[in-house]
Amino acid sequence: MVATATTDRSIEIWFEFGSPYSYLSVMRIVELATAAGVRPSWQPFLLGPIFRELGWQSSPFLEQPEKCAYMWVDLARQCRKYGLAWTQPTVFPRLAVLPLRVALLCRDEPWIGDFCSGVMIQAFAQDRDVGLEAHVAEVLTVLEQPAASIIAAAQSDANKLALRHQTERARRLGIFGAPTFLVAGEIFWGNDRLDDALAFARER
Amino acid sequence: MVATATTDRSIEIWFEFGSPYSYLSVMRIVELATAAGVRPSWQPFLLGPIFRELGWQSSPFLEQPEKCAYMWVDLARQCRKYGLAWTQPTVFPRLAVLPLRVALLCRDEPWIGDFCSGVMIQAFAQDRDVGLEAHVAEVLTVLEQPAASIIAAAQSDANKLALRHQTERARRLGIFGAPTFLVAGEIFWGNDRLDDALAFARER
Repeated sequence: MVATATTDRSIEIWFEFGSPYSYLSVMRIVELATAAGVRPSWQPFLLGPIFRELGWQSSPFLEQPEKCAYMWVDLARQCRKYGLAWTQPTVFPRLAVLPLRVALLCRDEPWIGDFCSGVMIQAFAQDRDVGLEAHVAEVLTVLEQPAASIIAAAQSDANKLALRHQTERARRLGIFGAPTFLVAGEIFWGNDRLDDALAFARER
Repeated sequence: MVATATTDRSIEIWFEFGSPYSYLSVMRIVELATAAGVRPSWQPFLLGPIFRELGWQSSPFLEQPEKCAYMWVDLARQCRKYGLAWTQPTVFPRLAVLPLRVALLCRDEPWIGDFCSGVMIQAFAQDRDVGLEAHVAEVLTVLEQPAASIIAAAQSDANKLALRHQTERARRLGIFGAPTFLVAGEIFWGNDRLDDALAFARER
Protein backbone atom coordinates (compact mmCIF):
# COMPACT_ATOMS: atom_id res chain seq x y z
CA MET A 1 0.00 0.00 0.00
CA VAL A 2 1.22 3.47 -0.80
CA ALA A 3 1.14 5.96 2.03
CA THR A 4 -1.20 8.81 1.28
CA ALA A 5 0.25 12.25 1.89
CA THR A 6 -3.24 13.65 2.34
CA THR A 7 -4.16 11.36 5.27
CA ASP A 8 -6.13 13.49 7.70
CA ARG A 9 -4.97 12.38 11.12
CA SER A 10 -7.20 14.00 13.69
CA ILE A 11 -8.11 13.67 17.34
CA GLU A 12 -11.41 14.82 18.78
CA ILE A 13 -11.12 16.39 22.21
CA TRP A 14 -14.43 16.36 24.09
CA PHE A 15 -14.11 18.81 26.94
CA GLU A 16 -15.92 21.02 29.45
CA PHE A 17 -14.68 24.31 30.87
CA GLY A 18 -15.97 23.21 34.29
CA SER A 19 -13.81 20.07 34.26
CA PRO A 20 -10.40 20.36 35.97
CA TYR A 21 -8.87 17.46 34.08
CA SER A 22 -10.08 19.04 30.83
CA TYR A 23 -7.93 22.03 31.81
CA LEU A 24 -4.80 19.87 31.68
CA SER A 25 -5.62 18.49 28.22
CA VAL A 26 -6.83 21.75 26.68
CA MET A 27 -3.54 23.35 27.71
CA ARG A 28 -1.43 20.45 26.44
CA ILE A 29 -3.10 19.21 23.27
CA VAL A 30 -2.03 21.78 20.68
CA GLU A 31 1.69 21.33 21.25
CA LEU A 32 1.48 17.54 21.57
CA ALA A 33 -0.83 17.10 18.58
CA THR A 34 1.32 19.35 16.43
CA ALA A 35 4.42 17.33 17.35
CA ALA A 36 2.51 14.16 16.42
CA GLY A 37 1.23 15.58 13.13
CA VAL A 38 -2.35 15.21 14.31
CA ARG A 39 -5.09 17.86 14.04
CA PRO A 40 -7.18 18.55 17.17
CA SER A 41 -10.91 18.72 16.57
CA TRP A 42 -12.54 20.75 19.37
CA GLN A 43 -15.72 19.22 20.78
CA PRO A 44 -17.15 21.26 23.66
CA PHE A 45 -20.13 19.70 25.42
CA LEU A 46 -22.12 19.97 28.66
CA LEU A 47 -21.07 17.49 31.35
CA GLY A 48 -24.02 18.25 33.66
CA PRO A 49 -26.72 16.48 31.60
CA ILE A 50 -24.39 13.50 31.06
CA PHE A 51 -23.74 13.15 34.77
CA ARG A 52 -27.45 13.44 35.56
CA GLU A 53 -28.31 10.74 33.04
CA LEU A 54 -25.67 8.52 34.65
CA GLY A 55 -27.34 9.00 38.02
CA TRP A 56 -25.18 11.66 39.65
CA GLN A 57 -26.54 14.96 40.92
CA SER A 58 -23.42 16.84 39.88
CA SER A 59 -19.76 16.04 39.38
CA PRO A 60 -18.97 12.52 40.62
CA PHE A 61 -16.14 14.12 42.56
CA LEU A 62 -18.69 15.93 44.71
CA GLU A 63 -20.34 12.65 45.61
CA GLN A 64 -17.27 11.60 47.58
CA PRO A 65 -15.27 13.79 49.92
CA GLU A 66 -12.21 11.50 49.83
CA LYS A 67 -12.05 11.41 46.06
CA CYS A 68 -12.65 15.13 45.81
CA ALA A 69 -9.93 15.96 48.36
CA TYR A 70 -7.55 13.72 46.44
CA MET A 71 -8.50 15.32 43.13
CA TRP A 72 -7.34 18.77 44.26
CA VAL A 73 -4.00 17.39 45.51
CA ASP A 74 -3.58 15.46 42.27
CA LEU A 75 -4.40 18.46 40.09
CA ALA A 76 -1.88 20.67 41.89
CA ARG A 77 0.75 17.98 41.37
CA GLN A 78 -0.17 17.41 37.72
CA CYS A 79 0.00 21.15 37.02
CA ARG A 80 3.48 21.29 38.58
CA LYS A 81 4.49 18.35 36.39
CA TYR A 82 3.20 20.00 33.22
CA GLY A 83 4.33 23.52 34.14
CA LEU A 84 0.79 24.89 34.24
CA ALA A 85 -0.44 27.62 36.58
CA TRP A 86 -2.95 26.38 39.14
CA THR A 87 -5.35 27.90 41.66
CA GLN A 88 -7.89 25.62 43.27
CA PRO A 89 -11.31 27.05 42.33
CA THR A 90 -13.32 28.42 45.26
CA VAL A 91 -16.50 27.34 43.45
CA PHE A 92 -16.78 23.86 41.95
CA PRO A 93 -18.10 22.99 39.52
CA ARG A 94 -18.58 26.33 37.80
CA LEU A 95 -21.26 26.63 35.16
CA ALA A 96 -19.65 27.20 31.80
CA VAL A 97 -22.58 27.25 29.41
CA LEU A 98 -21.74 30.55 27.72
CA PRO A 99 -18.08 29.81 26.89
CA LEU A 100 -19.10 26.32 25.76
CA ARG A 101 -21.64 27.86 23.38
CA VAL A 102 -18.97 30.20 22.02
CA ALA A 103 -16.50 27.32 21.66
CA LEU A 104 -19.05 25.24 19.76
CA LEU A 105 -19.97 28.12 17.46
CA CYS A 106 -16.32 28.91 16.76
CA ARG A 107 -14.76 25.48 16.90
CA ASP A 108 -13.39 25.69 13.36
CA GLU A 109 -11.86 29.13 13.77
CA PRO A 110 -8.06 29.29 13.72
CA TRP A 111 -8.11 30.89 17.19
CA ILE A 112 -10.28 28.22 18.87
CA GLY A 113 -7.34 26.66 20.73
CA ASP A 114 -6.35 30.03 22.15
CA PHE A 115 -9.95 30.77 23.12
CA CYS A 116 -10.24 27.48 25.00
CA SER A 117 -6.90 28.04 26.75
CA GLY A 118 -7.96 31.57 27.70
CA VAL A 119 -11.19 30.37 29.33
CA MET A 120 -9.38 27.52 31.10
CA ILE A 121 -6.79 29.92 32.53
CA GLN A 122 -9.60 32.06 33.94
CA ALA A 123 -11.17 28.97 35.51
CA PHE A 124 -8.18 27.11 36.91
CA ALA A 125 -5.31 29.58 37.16
CA GLN A 126 -7.28 32.72 38.13
CA ASP A 127 -10.30 31.26 39.97
CA ARG A 128 -12.70 33.41 37.96
CA ASP A 129 -16.30 32.71 36.99
CA VAL A 130 -16.05 31.66 33.35
CA GLY A 131 -19.82 31.74 32.93
CA LEU A 132 -19.90 35.54 33.06
CA GLU A 133 -20.37 37.35 29.75
CA ALA A 134 -17.72 39.94 30.70
CA HIS A 135 -15.12 37.22 31.18
CA VAL A 136 -15.93 35.50 27.90
CA ALA A 137 -15.81 38.87 26.15
CA GLU A 138 -12.40 39.52 27.68
CA VAL A 139 -10.95 36.37 26.14
CA LEU A 140 -12.44 37.16 22.74
CA THR A 141 -11.18 40.74 22.87
CA VAL A 142 -7.62 39.63 23.67
CA LEU A 143 -7.88 37.47 20.54
CA GLU A 144 -9.03 40.57 18.59
CA GLN A 145 -12.42 39.04 17.85
CA PRO A 146 -15.74 40.95 17.84
CA ALA A 147 -16.90 39.84 21.28
CA ALA A 148 -20.41 41.30 21.28
CA SER A 149 -21.50 39.82 17.97
CA ILE A 150 -19.93 36.43 18.69
CA ILE A 151 -21.64 36.25 22.09
CA ALA A 152 -24.96 37.25 20.53
CA ALA A 153 -24.64 34.51 17.92
CA ALA A 154 -23.59 32.03 20.61
CA GLN A 155 -26.78 32.84 22.53
CA SER A 156 -29.04 32.35 19.51
CA ASP A 157 -31.67 29.64 19.73
CA ALA A 158 -29.98 27.76 16.93
CA ASN A 159 -26.66 27.62 18.73
CA LYS A 160 -28.24 26.78 22.08
CA LEU A 161 -29.91 23.86 20.36
CA ALA A 162 -26.63 22.92 18.73
CA LEU A 163 -24.96 22.57 22.14
CA ARG A 164 -27.81 20.39 23.35
CA HIS A 165 -27.44 18.20 20.26
CA GLN A 166 -23.68 18.06 20.77
CA THR A 167 -24.23 16.85 24.33
CA GLU A 168 -26.67 14.19 23.14
CA ARG A 169 -24.05 13.11 20.63
CA ALA A 170 -21.54 12.74 23.47
CA ARG A 171 -24.02 10.53 25.31
CA ARG A 172 -24.61 8.36 22.24
CA LEU A 173 -20.85 7.97 21.77
CA GLY A 174 -20.68 6.52 25.28
CA ILE A 175 -18.82 9.49 26.74
CA PHE A 176 -19.13 9.56 30.55
CA GLY A 177 -16.54 12.14 31.56
CA ALA A 178 -14.13 14.78 30.34
CA PRO A 179 -11.75 15.08 28.76
CA THR A 180 -12.46 12.25 26.34
CA PHE A 181 -10.52 11.71 23.14
CA LEU A 182 -11.97 10.10 20.06
CA VAL A 183 -9.71 8.72 17.36
CA ALA A 184 -11.26 6.71 14.53
CA GLY A 185 -14.13 5.64 16.75
CA GLU A 186 -11.91 4.59 19.68
CA ILE A 187 -12.55 6.32 23.00
CA PHE A 188 -9.75 7.36 25.34
CA TRP A 189 -10.90 8.79 28.65
CA GLY A 190 -8.96 11.27 30.73
CA ASN A 191 -5.93 13.49 30.45
CA ASP A 192 -3.81 10.45 31.31
CA ARG A 193 -4.76 8.91 27.95
CA LEU A 194 -3.92 11.89 25.73
CA ASP A 195 -0.53 10.46 24.82
CA ASP A 196 -1.99 7.02 24.05
CA ALA A 197 -4.72 8.60 21.92
CA LEU A 198 -2.17 10.64 19.95
CA ALA A 199 0.04 7.58 19.48
CA PHE A 200 -2.98 5.71 18.14
CA ALA A 201 -3.84 8.59 15.77
CA ARG A 202 -0.25 8.73 14.53
CA GLU A 203 0.07 5.01 13.95
CA ARG A 204 -3.13 4.55 11.99
CA MET B 1 23.21 18.59 54.49
CA VAL B 2 25.05 15.36 53.85
CA ALA B 3 23.18 12.75 51.87
CA THR B 4 22.59 9.66 53.95
CA ALA B 5 23.56 6.43 52.26
CA THR B 6 21.13 4.54 54.45
CA THR B 7 18.06 6.55 53.35
CA ASP B 8 15.24 4.04 53.09
CA ARG B 9 13.30 5.10 50.04
CA SER B 10 10.13 3.08 49.93
CA ILE B 11 6.75 3.10 48.23
CA GLU B 12 3.66 1.46 49.69
CA ILE B 13 1.47 -0.25 47.13
CA TRP B 14 -2.09 -0.72 48.38
CA PHE B 15 -3.71 -3.28 46.12
CA GLU B 16 -6.48 -5.84 45.71
CA PHE B 17 -6.37 -9.03 43.66
CA GLY B 18 -9.90 -8.30 42.45
CA SER B 19 -8.86 -4.93 41.01
CA PRO B 20 -7.89 -4.89 37.32
CA TYR B 21 -5.84 -1.71 37.56
CA SER B 22 -3.99 -3.24 40.53
CA TYR B 23 -2.97 -5.99 38.10
CA LEU B 24 -1.10 -3.47 35.96
CA SER B 25 0.79 -2.01 38.91
CA VAL B 26 1.56 -5.29 40.66
CA MET B 27 3.11 -6.53 37.41
CA ARG B 28 5.08 -3.32 36.84
CA ILE B 29 6.23 -2.12 40.24
CA VAL B 30 9.19 -4.39 41.02
CA GLU B 31 11.11 -3.51 37.86
CA LEU B 32 10.26 0.21 38.04
CA ALA B 33 10.96 0.53 41.76
CA THR B 34 14.26 -1.32 41.43
CA ALA B 35 15.33 1.01 38.63
CA ALA B 36 14.39 3.97 40.84
CA GLY B 37 16.21 2.59 43.89
CA VAL B 38 12.95 2.43 45.81
CA ARG B 39 11.72 -0.51 47.89
CA PRO B 40 8.09 -1.62 47.37
CA SER B 41 6.14 -2.21 50.56
CA TRP B 42 3.23 -4.57 49.83
CA GLN B 43 -0.09 -3.54 51.37
CA PRO B 44 -2.92 -5.90 50.41
CA PHE B 45 -6.37 -4.82 51.59
CA LEU B 46 -10.04 -5.53 50.94
CA LEU B 47 -11.70 -3.10 48.53
CA GLY B 48 -15.26 -4.36 49.18
CA PRO B 49 -15.69 -2.81 52.66
CA ILE B 50 -14.14 0.46 51.44
CA PHE B 51 -16.55 0.67 48.51
CA ARG B 52 -19.52 -0.12 50.76
CA GLU B 53 -18.52 2.60 53.22
CA LEU B 54 -18.28 5.02 50.30
CA GLY B 55 -21.83 4.15 49.31
CA TRP B 56 -21.32 1.69 46.47
CA GLN B 57 -22.73 -1.83 46.45
CA SER B 58 -19.70 -3.23 44.69
CA SER B 59 -17.06 -1.96 42.30
CA PRO B 60 -17.91 1.56 41.12
CA PHE B 61 -17.33 0.21 37.62
CA LEU B 62 -20.39 -2.02 38.01
CA GLU B 63 -22.54 0.99 38.86
CA GLN B 64 -22.14 2.29 35.32
CA PRO B 65 -22.32 0.24 32.16
CA GLU B 66 -20.58 2.89 30.05
CA LYS B 67 -17.64 3.22 32.41
CA CYS B 68 -17.37 -0.54 32.80
CA ALA B 69 -17.43 -1.18 29.05
CA TYR B 70 -14.73 1.44 28.65
CA MET B 71 -12.65 -0.07 31.45
CA TRP B 72 -12.34 -3.40 29.63
CA VAL B 73 -11.28 -1.69 26.40
CA ASP B 74 -8.81 0.45 28.31
CA LEU B 75 -7.33 -2.51 30.20
CA ALA B 76 -6.78 -4.47 27.01
CA ARG B 77 -5.00 -1.45 25.51
CA GLN B 78 -2.93 -0.80 28.64
CA CYS B 79 -1.84 -4.44 28.75
CA ARG B 80 -0.75 -4.22 25.12
CA LYS B 81 1.20 -1.08 25.95
CA TYR B 82 2.95 -2.68 28.92
CA GLY B 83 3.43 -6.08 27.27
CA LEU B 84 1.22 -7.89 29.78
CA ALA B 85 -0.99 -10.89 29.04
CA TRP B 86 -4.70 -10.11 29.29
CA THR B 87 -7.95 -12.05 29.36
CA GLN B 88 -11.10 -10.21 30.33
CA PRO B 89 -12.44 -11.99 33.44
CA THR B 90 -15.76 -13.76 32.94
CA VAL B 91 -16.61 -12.99 36.59
CA PHE B 92 -16.11 -9.50 37.96
CA PRO B 93 -15.22 -8.64 40.59
CA ARG B 94 -13.83 -11.91 41.92
CA LEU B 95 -13.56 -12.40 45.67
CA ALA B 96 -9.92 -12.57 46.62
CA VAL B 97 -10.04 -12.84 50.41
CA LEU B 98 -7.80 -15.91 50.71
CA PRO B 99 -4.91 -14.70 48.55
CA LEU B 100 -5.14 -11.28 50.24
CA ARG B 101 -4.82 -12.98 53.63
CA VAL B 102 -1.77 -14.89 52.39
CA ALA B 103 -0.25 -11.72 50.94
CA LEU B 104 -0.75 -9.87 54.21
CA LEU B 105 0.75 -12.69 56.25
CA CYS B 106 3.74 -12.99 53.93
CA ARG B 107 4.21 -9.40 52.86
CA ASP B 108 7.79 -9.21 54.15
CA GLU B 109 8.89 -12.48 52.53
CA PRO B 110 11.42 -12.16 49.72
CA TRP B 111 8.99 -13.96 47.37
CA ILE B 112 5.99 -11.67 48.05
CA GLY B 113 6.30 -9.87 44.70
CA ASP B 114 6.30 -13.17 42.84
CA PHE B 115 3.33 -14.41 44.86
CA CYS B 116 1.33 -11.30 44.01
CA SER B 117 2.24 -11.53 40.32
CA GLY B 118 1.28 -15.21 40.30
CA VAL B 119 -2.18 -14.51 41.72
CA MET B 120 -2.69 -11.57 39.37
CA ILE B 121 -1.78 -13.71 36.34
CA GLN B 122 -4.40 -16.26 37.40
CA ALA B 123 -6.98 -13.48 37.72
CA PHE B 124 -6.33 -11.36 34.64
CA ALA B 125 -4.34 -13.47 32.22
CA GLN B 126 -5.95 -16.87 32.87
CA ASP B 127 -9.47 -15.92 34.00
CA ARG B 128 -9.27 -18.22 37.02
CA ASP B 129 -10.97 -17.91 40.40
CA VAL B 130 -8.20 -16.63 42.66
CA GLY B 131 -10.33 -17.13 45.77
CA LEU B 132 -10.01 -20.92 45.54
CA GLU B 133 -7.60 -22.58 47.94
CA ALA B 134 -6.26 -24.88 45.22
CA HIS B 135 -5.28 -21.91 43.08
CA VAL B 136 -3.56 -20.10 45.95
CA ALA B 137 -1.74 -23.32 46.83
CA GLU B 138 -0.61 -23.64 43.23
CA VAL B 139 1.09 -20.24 43.32
CA LEU B 140 2.80 -21.01 46.63
CA THR B 141 3.96 -24.41 45.40
CA VAL B 142 5.51 -22.92 42.28
CA LEU B 143 7.45 -20.64 44.64
CA GLU B 144 8.53 -23.72 46.62
CA GLN B 145 6.71 -22.59 49.73
CA PRO B 146 4.79 -24.91 52.13
CA ALA B 147 1.32 -24.14 50.80
CA ALA B 148 -0.78 -26.02 53.36
CA SER B 149 0.83 -24.48 56.43
CA ILE B 150 0.88 -20.98 54.97
CA ILE B 151 -2.80 -21.21 54.01
CA ALA B 152 -3.67 -22.53 57.49
CA ALA B 153 -1.84 -19.62 59.11
CA ALA B 154 -3.48 -17.18 56.69
CA GLN B 155 -6.89 -18.49 57.78
CA SER B 156 -6.16 -18.12 61.49
CA ASP B 157 -8.38 -15.77 63.46
CA ALA B 158 -5.41 -13.53 64.16
CA ASN B 159 -4.62 -13.10 60.46
CA LYS B 160 -8.27 -12.66 59.50
CA LEU B 161 -8.42 -9.85 62.03
CA ALA B 162 -5.16 -8.42 60.72
CA LEU B 163 -6.70 -8.07 57.23
CA ARG B 164 -9.73 -6.33 58.69
CA HIS B 165 -7.44 -3.93 60.56
CA GLN B 166 -5.39 -3.36 57.43
CA THR B 167 -8.57 -2.46 55.56
CA GLU B 168 -9.61 -0.05 58.32
CA ARG B 169 -6.18 1.51 58.07
CA ALA B 170 -6.70 2.01 54.32
CA ARG B 171 -9.96 3.78 55.10
CA ARG B 172 -8.31 6.06 57.68
CA LEU B 173 -5.56 6.92 55.19
CA GLY B 174 -8.24 8.19 52.82
CA ILE B 175 -7.77 5.38 50.31
CA PHE B 176 -10.82 5.03 48.04
CA GLY B 177 -9.59 2.75 45.29
CA ALA B 178 -6.80 0.51 44.12
CA PRO B 179 -4.00 0.59 43.37
CA THR B 180 -3.00 3.45 45.64
CA PHE B 181 0.59 4.41 46.32
CA LEU B 182 1.75 6.01 49.54
CA VAL B 183 5.07 7.80 49.69
CA ALA B 184 5.95 9.75 52.84
CA GLY B 185 2.27 10.33 53.56
CA GLU B 186 1.41 11.49 50.05
CA ILE B 187 -1.29 9.52 48.25
CA PHE B 188 -1.10 8.69 44.55
CA TRP B 189 -4.16 6.93 43.14
CA GLY B 190 -4.17 4.60 40.17
CA ASN B 191 -1.71 2.78 37.97
CA ASP B 192 -1.37 6.00 35.98
CA ARG B 193 0.36 7.61 38.98
CA LEU B 194 2.94 4.88 39.65
CA ASP B 195 5.65 6.77 37.79
CA ASP B 196 4.86 10.04 39.60
CA ALA B 197 4.88 8.26 42.95
CA LEU B 198 8.25 6.68 42.21
CA ALA B 199 9.67 10.00 41.04
CA PHE B 200 8.48 11.56 44.29
CA ALA B 201 10.06 8.73 46.33
CA ARG B 202 13.34 9.11 44.43
CA GLU B 203 13.53 12.89 44.80
CA ARG B 204 12.86 13.06 48.52
